[in-house]
Amino acid sequence: GVLGSGDFARSLAVRLVCSGFKVVVGSRNPKRKANLFPAAAEVTFQTEAVKKADVIFVAIFREHYSTLCDLADVLAGKILVDVSNNTEINHHKESNAEYLASLFPACTVVKGFNVVSAWTLQSGARDGNKQVLICSNNQEAKRIVAEIAQVMGFTPVDMGCMSSACEIENIPLRLLPAWKIPIFLALGLFLCFFTYNLIRQVIHPYIREQKNKLYKIPIEVVNTTLPCVSYVMLSLVYLPGVLAACSQLYYGTKYRRFPDWLDQWLQHRKQIGLLSFFCAALHAVYSLCLPMRRSHRYLLIETAVKQAVEKKMTIWVEEEVWRMEIYISVGIIALGLLSLLAITSLPSIANSLNWREFSFIQ
Amino acid sequence: GVLGSGDFARSLAVRLVCSGFKVVVGSRNPKRKANLFPAAAEVTFQTEAVKKADVIFVAIFREHYSTLCDLADVLAGKILVDVSNNTEINHHKESNAEYLASLFPACTVVKGFNVVSAWTLQSGARDGNKQVLICSNNQEAKRIVAEIAQVMGFTPVDMGCMSSACEIENIPLRLLPAWKIPIFLALGLFLCFFTYNLIRQVIHPYIREQKNKLYKIPIEVVNTTLPCVSYVMLSLVYLPGVLAACSQLYYGTKYRRFPDWLDQWLQHRKQIGLLSFFCAALHAVYSLCLPMRRSHRYLLIETAVKQAVEKKMTIWVEEEVWRMEIYISVGIIALGLLSLLAITSLPSIANSLNWREFSFIQ
Amino acid sequence: GVLGSGDFARSLAVRLVCSGFKVVVGSRNPKRKANLFPAAAEVTFQTEAVKKADVIFVAIFREHYSTLCDLADVLAGKILVDVSNNTEINHHKESNAEYLASLFPACTVVKGFNVVSAWTLQSGARDGNKQVLICSNNQEAKRIVAEIAQVMGFTPVDMGCMSSACEIENIPLRLLPAWKIPIFLALGLFLCFFTYNLIRQVIHPYIREQKNKLYKIPIEVVNTTLPCVSYVMLSLVYLPGVLAACSQLYYGTKYRRFPDWLDQWLQHRKQIGLLSFFCAALHAVYSLCLPMRRSHRYLLIETAVKQAVEKKMTIWVEEEVWRMEIYISVGIIALGLLSLLAITSLPSIANSLNWREFSFIQ
Repeated sequence: GVLGSGDFARSLAVRLVCSGFKVVVGSRNPKRKANLFPAAAEVTFQTEAVKKADVIFVAIFREHYSTLCDLADVLAGKILVDVSNNTEINHHKESNAEYLASLFPACTVVKGFNVVSAWTLQSGARDGNKQVLICSNNQEAKRIVAEIAQVMGFTPVDMGCMSSACEIENIPLRLLPAWKIPIFLALGLFLCFFTYNLIRQVIHPYIREQKNKLYKIPIEVVNTTLPCVSYVMLSLVYLPGVLAACSQLYYGTKYRRFPDWLDQWLQHRKQIGLLSFFCAALHAVYSLCLPMRRSHRYLLIETAVKQAVEKKMTIWVEEEVWRMEIYISVGIIALGLLSLLAITSLPSIANSLNWREFSFIQ
Repeated sequence: GVLGSGDFARSLAVRLVCSGFKVVVGSRNPKRKANLFPAAAEVTFQTEAVKKADVIFVAIFREHYSTLCDLADVLAGKILVDVSNNTEINHHKESNAEYLASLFPACTVVKGFNVVSAWTLQSGARDGNKQVLICSNNQEAKRIVAEIAQVMGFTPVDMGCMSSACEIENIPLRLLPAWKIPIFLALGLFLCFFTYNLIRQVIHPYIREQKNKLYKIPIEVVNTTLPCVSYVMLSLVYLPGVLAACSQLYYGTKYRRFPDWLDQWLQHRKQIGLLSFFCAALHAVYSLCLPMRRSHRYLLIETAVKQAVEKKMTIWVEEEVWRMEIYISVGIIALGLLSLLAITSLPSIANSLNWREFSFIQ
Repeated sequence: GVLGSGDFARSLAVRLVCSGFKVVVGSRNPKRKANLFPAAAEVTFQTEAVKKADVIFVAIFREHYSTLCDLADVLAGKILVDVSNNTEINHHKESNAEYLASLFPACTVVKGFNVVSAWTLQSGARDGNKQVLICSNNQEAKRIVAEIAQVMGFTPVDMGCMSSACEIENIPLRLLPAWKIPIFLALGLFLCFFTYNLIRQVIHPYIREQKNKLYKIPIEVVNTTLPCVSYVMLSLVYLPGVLAACSQLYYGTKYRRFPDWLDQWLQHRKQIGLLSFFCAALHAVYSLCLPMRRSHRYLLIETAVKQAVEKKMTIWVEEEVWRMEIYISVGIIALGLLSLLAITSLPSIANSLNWREFSFIQ
């Protein structure tokens, strides 16, 4: 049974019918809404629908849960599936599912399907996210809903008891939570190093020698800043592991919890590493662009003209040549190794490595 | 039971035996063929095999279905699984499975396993495509076959009733259908812009000033063409969304179907976007190659020599310098952002993003 | 039931409790260990635990299996799940699971869960490797353990009978086995071509003309070596397919096994191809770096000065210009095509292609 006649209710009914279930839709205006649902689904009044169904998907907003109180008698003993989402993280004190359970103590409430979009329901599980997170205090009800999810083509994931409902309801609202700290860290480091390089390469020569080097800001200053950020970020990837090992050695046990800041840090290593790779890759692209610039061309021609006028035939400095050759050579190798690390962090590749292979590559 | 003794029948028998099923193979020459099958599978005459089995995989070509008509009596009441494929899209008016069902009205026919190759069957589900699309008019038979698929290590996907058989049979024959229109679009745009740039950069100077600039064709003309294609393609990614929103506002409802051309367009956005990124990436590589060319080197030396002979010591044009620095800088940032979009379109990464994160990145 | 009180036993108990199972942990010091396990799991003496459980996970080291012999009577008729790993490949003559089965002939032994790390168990199946490989001689026991794995959120993969246990136990110990031969091949080829290019570009000019070109070693010699390696590797990807076809034509059958060396070669094609792409990509990066080098700059200025002093105004060689333009242009296109091949070898993209599309791209 499906209660509700919105987008999600409709898509859910379509998918359930396609998967071979008998579907009854309960609506307050069954006649007006019937044409929106697939022909195989029976659209009727809410009381009728509830009577006929054993598992009832409650596809209505939290604000309207109380309107179902008239149905409390017929709902008793049924399994209610709460599919609702919130508009804000931790909007209400208790999760929607717990609120529903408190309204209908005679029902078994299961939280689930909220991470699946109406679009995924309609297009089938082949596109988009295939996991359906489920939680409930009743093992049997959870098992029944998990089986329905499996027949619909989704992968049910058991999230334990009802207290996880709040966490499940927050999932569709999260916005790259693991990336926030690393990105602000990278931006902060970039600003510091950029300021330092700006003073050193542009402002200092201007004050001391009145030379106008402002043209260096968009590319050269950025290009000397990026590898600094990249190096510091890379060291921040491997530092917390060392700190964790020290902490374990100091306390002589590996079952003591790490302090919160270290725990957070350990969990953000992958993101920090990817940002470090991103900075290194940008540095490579900027460096490769250097000889394309007009300024490079002009400086080259000016030097040549000066040499020609002074009839100096040679300009070769062996040490400078070697420094540059080795610098570029080592840079390419470092970027190649960093790319390898970045590629193995792709989920589909990381999943095909075992622990020994992963630590070998690291 | 497996009817047939080709590659697919053999691989199917191997896999079924490995997954713990009792397998009976029906062949017209059981003695000659027995050594091709695993020892644990019983190879016997077709009639015998059918009698012993409840679920029968029909691993023979559509052309030979009629040879099974002698077995109609023993087949009655059994579940027949049609695993056949076609050699051409929509080769026959009705799908193979529907044809089989019409020949044996007393049997329950299930379409399935045709998207799995003999190779995948043998190597196990760990490599290659793990999904098995199943359809049938009989829910119970579909459930049984889906369970067999699951035990064999595949993910059964319910495709509804028998009318989907035609669609399922066409899947192994499709050739990147979503890419055809975007690729022709990109080629068309490339040709138009290439012609325009060719006239402007090569033919026009030749006619007006008799200058031979033919050497510009392979790199410079291509390099000015690519970003034009990339920009137009990128705008074509976001235009249909705007048109769709306008259409919804105009008709005042979101339940009206879009016209077919708009629907098609909306569905090809991802491919158009990836081609736009591909052109942008090629443009970046071409641009980086510019200073490597002999022509660049010769022009540089010629300018230097001219300056030296005329004893002009300075050539610096502040405006030109700034234009180039800013142009390169903005280009790198744009390519970086486009790369981000391209990476998040990888299936394994897209699946780990929720809707809010996906639209944030877009 | 879980026997053992190590990391893995703990994580297993946590996961089983979270998935709704009733868990009994058997330990030799139940009082001292109880606080390490979740509250919902009952920690008691081994004998008690075994009596209460039907399925028993043996999470202790192979060396201590014999200490369980006292429990032989209470263990009789139960299902034992061997979750152990080895520290070396093929450390013992028989697999741990087979050894356990020989110690307790009255029990049904199932091998499984050893490829899952304690970390994956704790963090849930959403991260890391989701497959659980299972094997046993008893179909029913295997089915029960597979169901437990499924409820815990893993994908059970049936690996057949107990003789596969050895293979399953070796999986967590393998270290990129498919990459070893291709990498040594690439290194060998690199050394050969590097020596040749070193002699040709550095040693020969030094001996004949006393010219010091040592600065060419880190970049120019490497850069001429890489495409040679890349080409030979690419040809080695497509050669074994041709040899296999010849062998099939010669013997007139496709059911004859290929010789072992050809079989090995055919299986390493993907890795060889990816290394070929890696060399080609490195060659591209090295080439792009060429104009960034000091040596390039010095040579350019020297040529310009020489020209200016001799008052030669033109240096343009049409043939050289065209060679370079076409060389770069073809190189970019080749690299673009090779990138396409590399991208389609990512597991998540390869899985979404059917056989026809895959061979079209190849």
